[in-house]
Amino acid sequence: MQEKNRRQANITFTIQKLEENKAKYFTFAIPPNELILESGKKLGPIRIAYETYGKLNQEKTNAILIAHALSGDAHAAGINQQKGIEGWWNNLIGPGKGIDTNKFFVVCSNIIGGCQGSTGPSSINLYTGKEYSTDFPIITIGDMVNAQKALINHLKISKLLSVIGGSMGGMQVLQWMIAYPESIKSAIPIATTMKHTPQQIAFNEVGRQAIISDPNWNKGHYYGSRVPAKGLALARMIGHITYMSDDSMSKKFGRHFKTKKNNGIKFEPEFEVEGYLRYRGGSFVKRFDANSYLYITKAMDNFNIVNGKDIGHIFKGLRAKILVISFESDWLYPSQQSQEIVRACKLARVKTSYCEISSSYGHDAFLLETGEEGQIIGHFLNTLN
Amino acid sequence: MQEKNRRQANITFTIQKLEENKAKYFTFAIPPNELILESGKKLGPIRIAYETYGKLNQEKTNAILIAHALSGDAHAAGINQQKGIEGWWNNLIGPGKGIDTNKFFVVCSNIIGGCQGSTGPSSINLYTGKEYSTDFPIITIGDMVNAQKALINHLKISKLLSVIGGSMGGMQVLQWMIAYPESIKSAIPIATTMKHTPQQIAFNEVGRQAIISDPNWNKGHYYGSRVPAKGLALARMIGHITYMSDDSMSKKFGRHFKTKKNNGIKFEPEFEVEGYLRYRGGSFVKRFDANSYLYITKAMDNFNIVNGKDIGHIFKGLRAKILVISFESDWLYPSQQSQEIVRACKLARVKTSYCEISSSYGHDAFLLETGEEGQIIGHFLNTLN
Repeated sequence: MQEKNRRQANITFTIQKLEENKAKYFTFAIPPNELILESGKKLGPIRIAYETYGKLNQEKTNAILIAHALSGDAHAAGINQQKGIEGWWNNLIGPGKGIDTNKFFVVCSNIIGGCQGSTGPSSINLYTGKEYSTDFPIITIGDMVNAQKALINHLKISKLLSVIGGSMGGMQVLQWMIAYPESIKSAIPIATTMKHTPQQIAFNEVGRQAIISDPNWNKGHYYGSRVPAKGLALARMIGHITYMSDDSMSKKFGRHFKTKKNNGIKFEPEFEVEGYLRYRGGSFVKRFDANSYLYITKAMDNFNIVNGKDIGHIFKGLRAKILVISFESDWLYPSQQSQEIVRACKLARVKTSYCEISSSYGHDAFLLETGEEGQIIGHFLNTLN
Repeated sequence: MQEKNRRQANITFTIQKLEENKAKYFTFAIPPNELILESGKKLGPIRIAYETYGKLNQEKTNAILIAHALSGDAHAAGINQQKGIEGWWNNLIGPGKGIDTNKFFVVCSNIIGGCQGSTGPSSINLYTGKEYSTDFPIITIGDMVNAQKALINHLKISKLLSVIGGSMGGMQVLQWMIAYPESIKSAIPIATTMKHTPQQIAFNEVGRQAIISDPNWNKGHYYGSRVPAKGLALARMIGHITYMSDDSMSKKFGRHFKTKKNNGIKFEPEFEVEGYLRYRGGSFVKRFDANSYLYITKAMDNFNIVNGKDIGHIFKGLRAKILVISFESDWLYPSQQSQEIVRACKLARVKTSYCEISSSYGHDAFLLETGEEGQIIGHFLNTLN
């Protein structure tokens, strides 16, 4: 059985060439065929789903890596040809846009631990022929970045022009700055933090508890059976509240009642915000794996590049140029945490600029305020050469 | 069956005289034996559990009503003689304390809809002989206050010296100011709001969803069976995050790991804050009824004394003196909402003073910052006569 699966694994060891704007897959084919995780455990073979936009120049000096957030995927830009879905940062990435694909070669890969093409808990463990489920090892932001580095090596890019990401994507950016300082010419961490506060951990923990408390979770072994939809929807609802600001919620919903009456059923949604949260929670379940939610939020909570270090030593020796961006109404990753990154960079004599963008969208602003954000990023990228 | 229960109901129509500092019970014995709710529905007979501290003077001019918050009860002060439990505002109420029981007669009753002695969804519906469960009618903050007014009438107090409460207790205070302006000489709404914002509704809604999603909830019919403990614990965890500030969480937990190792079980609590949330969620389940949580949070979300009115008209004609208190780090009921109350009072020419107390405890501060809070309340009460 194991032998047979091993052979199947070898089949996927080829790199599938796909057309532009359609996910490509890279599988670690080089020995040792495995990624040694920060925990010391080994994971492999690993498949990484990625998309690219624009063209890599001959000198391979125009490559930008985009790192996605908790629920993101490799489909950052363009319109998915099969499903017609717009990339999650399509307003920012494209010809003539803030991250201009007429100039830059943009790569975005799904994180390991995820569920959108890259190896994660819902992937088949080739040694058992079954989904990993909770046998999937604990992964870290560092592991995600190491997998991205393998992809970048595979693409034969020795130095990225920039690595850019918001929220958990920003954590990956910070990790690149620490783990591969020589491999990046610049970096743009957006709406992120060097470590989670107890409050940030607490919100994630309640989300995890919601999933684990769902009887359908079944200790993680729900594949091929009923998924813990209610638990995952609840986790997403909690997330959504933290992604929006009180102000943006008020503008969007006010205290409006849903137009459809709830037929007198008690505790059905009455306010628009309630219906919205349930809808968003429910739709999330269709595209996201509950175990991935557990693993990824744990990776976020465990991320800590300060870790007792003197703040001036965190980025010591880094020669990349840094642009830090935060958003005024973001209370999940408040500007103060971005300013702490700026301080750490400046104390380490890293060339750093910072901008707080005025917005009422809360944490979601990094996905929505693409006008100013694009201008600021575009200007920064154009001044790199 | 109905006849028999009706007779049983009559048995409880007596007022139980109990010793000081032990809950007393008042049952609506006056015709029509029922409370007509704001919804138009009738509820009755109603039992109200209450405690009193200090002595009512002959003129009956020294009575203060304390209104409790979501998870509070009638046991506001002293040490419960049976269980040894300290009152939830014991630091504020007592001989020589901020609300001085050497001077004042203090009354605190459990809200209707609650589960700590007053009639709520877990009470026996005397017409069916079973728990109300979700047959319990939707109740409002106005209904809670109407029940309190019946209790005050029963105690033959025509005018309260003050009505004081924080959070949802503060909503009841605001309701007293509107519904019974002639029955109060003063009022102290603390850390509260005239209406919930969509964000405040959203946090409550996720808590309700957590309860409803628990299979043990069984559409509310879980009495005598397994209670929706996981759902209620989750709701409480979400609540706890909103009651604390990021700062108070950081001071209390930092990013410390639990000392007991989690035996390698994935997604068990690792950080202290995780363990604390689970513990608090779990202990809450032992003392609180999940259906009460649903009904009470709905009452909070539906509370709206602005309701399209010109802000200057809300408290028009009120002659009571008002003291509004808020806390600096409270992000659930931010100072801005208290200042809006002040503005509404001032525009209505109501004598109003306001104080924001410096604190890092978040919303919990109204229960914890009893030092300054007590001094400010004590000073205000002493200047009333």
